[in-house]
Order: sequence, then structure tokens, then C-alpha cells
Amino acid sequence: MTELTADDCLWRNARLATLDSRLPQPYGLLENYALVVRNGHIRAVVPDPGPRPGQANCVDLEGRLVTPGLIDCHTHLIFGGSRAQEWEQRMNGVSYQQISAQGGGINATVGATRAAQPAQLLGLARQRVKKLMHEGVTTLEIKSGYGLDLQSEEKMLQVAGRLARENPIEISRTLLAAHATPAEYKGDPEGYITLVCETLLPALWEKGLFEAVDVFCESVGFSPAQSERVFRAACARGIAVKGHVEQLSCLGGAQLVSRYRGLSADHVEYLDEDGVAAMAQSATVAVLLPGAFYFLNESRRPPVALLRKYRVPMAVATDYNPGTSPFLSLHLAMNMACVQFGLTPEEAWAGVTRHAAQALGRKSSHGQLAAGYVADFVVWDAQHPVEILYEPARNPLYLRVFRGEVTA
Amino acid sequence: MTELTADDCLWRNARLATLDSRLPQPYGLLENYALVVRNGHIRAVVPDPGPRPGQANCVDLEGRLVTPGLIDCHTHLIFGGSRAQEWEQRMNGVSYQQISAQGGGINATVGATRAAQPAQLLGLARQRVKKLMHEGVTTLEIKSGYGLDLQSEEKMLQVAGRLARENPIEISRTLLAAHATPAEYKGDPEGYITLVCETLLPALWEKGLFEAVDVFCESVGFSPAQSERVFRAACARGIAVKGHVEQLSCLGGAQLVSRYRGLSADHVEYLDEDGVAAMAQSATVAVLLPGAFYFLNESRRPPVALLRKYRVPMAVATDYNPGTSPFLSLHLAMNMACVQFGLTPEEAWAGVTRHAAQALGRKSSHGQLAAGYVADFVVWDAQHPVEILYEPARNPLYLRVFRGEVTA
Ligand SMILES: [Zn+2]
Ligand SMILES: [Zn+2]
Repeated sequence: MTELTADDCLWRNARLATLDSRLPQPYGLLENYALVVRNGHIRAVVPDPGPRPGQANCVDLEGRLVTPGLIDCHTHLIFGGSRAQEWEQRMNGVSYQQISAQGGGINATVGATRAAQPAQLLGLARQRVKKLMHEGVTTLEIKSGYGLDLQSEEKMLQVAGRLARENPIEISRTLLAAHATPAEYKGDPEGYITLVCETLLPALWEKGLFEAVDVFCESVGFSPAQSERVFRAACARGIAVKGHVEQLSCLGGAQLVSRYRGLSADHVEYLDEDGVAAMAQSATVAVLLPGAFYFLNESRRPPVALLRKYRVPMAVATDYNPGTSPFLSLHLAMNMACVQFGLTPEEAWAGVTRHAAQALGRKSSHGQLAAGYVADFVVWDAQHPVEILYEPARNPLYLRVFRGEVTA
Repeated sequence: MTELTADDCLWRNARLATLDSRLPQPYGLLENYALVVRNGHIRAVVPDPGPRPGQANCVDLEGRLVTPGLIDCHTHLIFGGSRAQEWEQRMNGVSYQQISAQGGGINATVGATRAAQPAQLLGLARQRVKKLMHEGVTTLEIKSGYGLDLQSEEKMLQVAGRLARENPIEISRTLLAAHATPAEYKGDPEGYITLVCETLLPALWEKGLFEAVDVFCESVGFSPAQSERVFRAACARGIAVKGHVEQLSCLGGAQLVSRYRGLSADHVEYLDEDGVAAMAQSATVAVLLPGAFYFLNESRRPPVALLRKYRVPMAVATDYNPGTSPFLSLHLAMNMACVQFGLTPEEAWAGVTRHAAQALGRKSSHGQLAAGYVADFVVWDAQHPVEILYEPARNPLYLRVFRGEVTA
């Protein structure tokens, strides 16, 4: 095997679910293998060299299952306030219109988020991040989009930066200023989009506060033409784009995202074959969000068979947010992707590792156990990867490793 | 207020969700109240008498929410083996018939449970009970039904007894010998029912190992006539009955349960109006099991509107089992009951407290914060009961109290 130097750490006697798509076995499974880790990266994946008595930098995993660290590639994890009592009203028959008229819905979250001090937002978000870390998440996307003005969008993105600095987790920040039209622009979405394109986007990009730009392209969000204005502003600066598209209706948002070579098209329940074909052309990932589908009691499922046919990679994420997906569990999202959308457990696993990495522009560095990739992985008290999603309320996490260091 | 003696403990400065149906407020909410507890029971529910400096037996709950301890009134929590890999096969298109032919399905669980030592079953079940306790469960029903012979059914019920003795939780044991026809009686369900009625039921009752008898009355289980034989054997000894009925088809199982004044009719997706009317007559509880509905991807929902119209109490339970409801979370079951079946959050709460107590024959002693009831309650870091089910993956449990003693 590869020679071990003093800088290397050997994680041996493992069953590796590499999720390396070059391997023919399901899950890229390698029995009785070892990882050689150096400087936070995987240097080599090798057959188990056997015990190394007395060697300090060698960990015997006793045959346990190892997977890549999980990647939650779509969340709205930073927000103030609670929408639980609004949901209680809805379940008691109060209409969404009435709730909106009372100041509920997304406006309630925007109000609470604007009013919150950064330290308050940080405290709430920290608990949520810890829950996901406890499930084995090592890379996490967080969107802005409850500020909807320069100062509040910046506040959200700064809090996301603080979370990344104070926790052993990698955070990918996305500017979702085009999430909704704020009250002060009521009836003038074009005016708000101008603010986004000419002020928010350039100013926050200048400060290095995000790495991609997202839009909510929907009848109740922004039109394809408005969304495209945002994409043009992003692409002019070389910023990657993605979109919430085809969730409640088919507006051609997937084609729009594909035209701008977007990283991902998210939700996509109403995606049609033309949209799938466009995504295949642009190597755009379909991010499936079964928590929102469940919580909104939807019936239209994303076109999984077509996505398979065109070989569009499918990712799975929590979409954690206070209004439509209050489920802080990526294991549950994986279960729901199988039960509700018909993914196989292996597809669900690819969806929170290899394909989630691709959705975040980290295809060559994250989401697989392979030489050259980051040493973010999870050791499970389990025999087989299916166990983690079969019983989502039972968490068999044994060790969480971030950049080669045990963190839980 | 009531005079406090040295034997009393005062839990004050609380927001009580009493779930006492005599109170007109939603959830029986009482703001700024206190509980007086003595000998493991609630002696009185009183307006907060204010701070009592220096008094040892007084706990200031700082305005927190208090609810009755949760009751999971339908589980199959003791079993050996795992069905995760069988599920993976199913999600990859292998038919249930093929899986059965390979020895999968319930037969796999029966085989693994028969083969397991009591200590093994106990070890597995202990972890599961701890998870439910951590969610605030203080009373738990556990069914036999994976033994299907005298020795193995006794083993399961003995393990359930051990669980109750070693943990601060009350366990209600149910004999579900009529769960499936075991392999050795293949093609002869009547013969197996004879064994149940003439051997298992009397022998295990004699040993005091259960308090109620259950049957699986379904096209793939036992016919109504076979189920009735079991009920007759139970009623001849004055044993309470209940049934898994109308889950996949309407066979009149609810009427059958009602004729024997059963405690509960469980699943009931296919229940019709005649069945609902019969249940109302016999004060039989409808136990809703949304985890199985979700996991089997069913579309027929229980007739909630009819159950409301006839004032049939609705309980909600996990149905935790390895084949059709592998979800060890009563909070998630409550969420699913609302999202999938349209219960209000208050109905879901009654379903895991007052009505679950009734389903276990404990209507006058469990499931409410009221004078004379057991002092099983949960203190939550929450403002309102809806928060506990709105975000089922977030557990705001602050203190769990069983018979007046803090246990977590
Ligand atoms: Zn979203
Ligand atoms: Zn059951």
C-alpha cells in the first residue's frame, strides 16, 4: 500500500460506502478498506493493511460503515420568529388569504428577521446547525431571503459566515434576495428587482458574502422575465445561479436556469420533458425537496423517471424553513424522497453526497470518499447505508469527521 | 389555595396545557397555574400562589409550558432483526411476493424474534424505549405478535415486563398472538386460532403477562369470524379487547370490536359510517396510525369528519414496527396526523394524552393534568403546544416527570 508518513492518519478496518460513481458496486461499497488522510484531505483509499500495533495515527473502525459527510444543499436556516401558531390556524380552517391579511406568511418571517439582532439570529441558527451536524452533515447551504433589503440581507449572510467560523462545518452562502417582494415594494416587483440587481447583488458580492444567486420563479414569486434580470446581473459578474422553479406550476424556469448554466433547479414538481432535456444539456442538478411536498400536502411529484432517462443528477435537501418545510432532518428528507418520490435508497444517498456536492459547485472536492476529496466523513453504527434512512428517527452516528478531525 | 404539607411538591409558575376536556379553553390551557403533587399523583391544580422563598419542595418553572406525559397507545416495539434491506429491495422494484418467497416480510421478523435471547431483545427494546422517553412518553403500549408460539409470545411479554421494571415508564402489554399465521400452521389459520384461544391466551393470562387482547382482522390477516373466536375467548375471562381493523379493506371489524365493547379500533382507513356509529355506541376509541399510512404510500384516509360527527375519540400512535412504520417518534406521528389526516394540532394532542389513555383503559387516571391523575408530565421549552408537533425533528423537552419524579 501507499507508504504512511507521520503526517498521515489511517482510518482502517472499515466498510466504505464511497459513493464514487466510477465503482460498479451499489453505493461504491468497498469491504475491508481504509482511508489515508493528510491535511484534511483523503490521500488514498486502500485495502485494509491490517492492524498496526502501537501506531498512534491509526484508528480501528472495527468493521463499521463509513460514508461521505452529508451535504444539505438547500436550506433557509437563518430566520427569526415562528410560524407554528399560523399553521395551527390553517389546520383549523383559516385561509392563507386571511393569514396573509393578518400579516402572516413570509411577511411575518421577514418582519421578525429584520427586527432580530444578529446575536439572536446566530443563537437560533446555531442550534439548528448543531442538529444537522449531529446527523452527520458536514457541508450546508444557507440562503438569505428573509431580509429583502440591503442591511437585512447582509445581516443574514454575515450570520451565516459567523456560523461557519465557529463550527466545524462548511457553509455555502446563497443570495436569495429575489425570494419575495417586500411590503415597501408592494405592487412594484420590477422596482424591487431593480434594487436587487443594481444595489443588493453588487454590494454584497463586493463584500464576498455569497457564492451563488437564487430566485423564486413562480406565479406567487417572480416571473421568468424578472428572474432572468437577476440571472443577467449575476452572470455579468461571473456568479453562479440556481432557481426555485416549477414547484407549483410549469413556467419554463428550468430552461431559464439551464440557459444560464445554473448549478441547480430546485423543487421541480411540475418540470416537463423539455425542461429535463435542457437541464441535461447544461449539467444542472435537480434538487428534490420532499419536506415541502409533504408539508403542503401536494400530489404532483417530480418527474423522476424522466430525470433518470436523461441522466440528470438528483440531489435531496431539507429546504428547512419556517413556513413550508419545518423539518430539521436530512435523514427524514432522504426517507421522504424514497417513500414519496420513489427514489431508491442509493439515489437518496447520492442525493445528499455526490449530487448535492455538484449542486454546490463542489463536484470534484466533496461528496465522495476518493483520493483528493476533503476528509469529511461519518462513521456509523450500522451495517448498510439503507439503515440511516429507513429509520430516520433513529440516528446511528458513531463519529463525525470534518477535515480529518473528529468533531462528535 | 390548598394547604401544602411536607409531603406535597409544588410545581409553580407554569402555563398548563391540561388537556382537561371540562375546561373550555383550547388544550384546557391555564396561564400562571401550579400543580400540587403528592405520592406520584396530582392532588390539585391551582392558580399560581407566587414564589415561596426557602421552601424546598417548590419548583419554579419560569412560565414554561407543561403538558401531560405523552402516551403511545399502539406499538410493536419488541422484535429482533431488521427489515431495512428488504425495503431497499422493494424500492428497487422487487415485489412483496418475491420478498415473501425469500422468507422476508413478517416471517423474517418472527424468525429473528424467535431466535433472539431475551437479553438481546431487551437490549434492542431498551434503546427504543429511551428514545420515546426522551420525547416525553410516560405510558407506552407494547404488543406481542412476533413470537406466534407459546414460548416466544411469553418471551416478548416478559421482556416488556422487564422494560417496565427497569425504566421510569408505565407499560401496557397486549397479547397479539393473532397477528399472523405462523409457518408451522400454513394453510390452517383456524388451527392456529384454536392454539391461541385454548393454549396461548389462557396460559399467558394465568401468568399475568398482558392486560388486553388484539387481533389483526384483515384479508391478509384473520377473518372477522376467526377474530371473533379470539374475542370470545378473551371476554369469557373478562379481558379487554381491541383490533387492527379496516386498514386495507372494510370487513366490518369495527362493528365486531364494538360488539365486544373493545377499547379501540386501530388504523380504520376504510371505516364506514355504520362502523363509526357502532364505535360511538360502545365508546371505542379510533386509534389513527399515520406512520404506516405514510410508509405504505396509502391514499385512503380515515373518516375524520365522521369520527368528529359521532364524537368518537381519536388517538394517535406510532405503530412503531420494523415492517410498516419504522418511525420511533410520537412527535412525528402527531405531525403526520395533522398533515395527512387533517387533524387539528389540538386533536393530535388529545390523541396522545386523554384519548390515548382511554384507548388503554386509563381514562380516569392518565392523560390529563387534573386532581387525582398520575403526576406524569412534561415541561417544555416552548410557548405553545403546537410547537412540539410543528417541528417534529426539534425536541424542546426541558423536564420529564414520572410519578412526580424528574427523570430527564
Ligand atoms: Zn427553498
Ligand atoms: Zn399495529
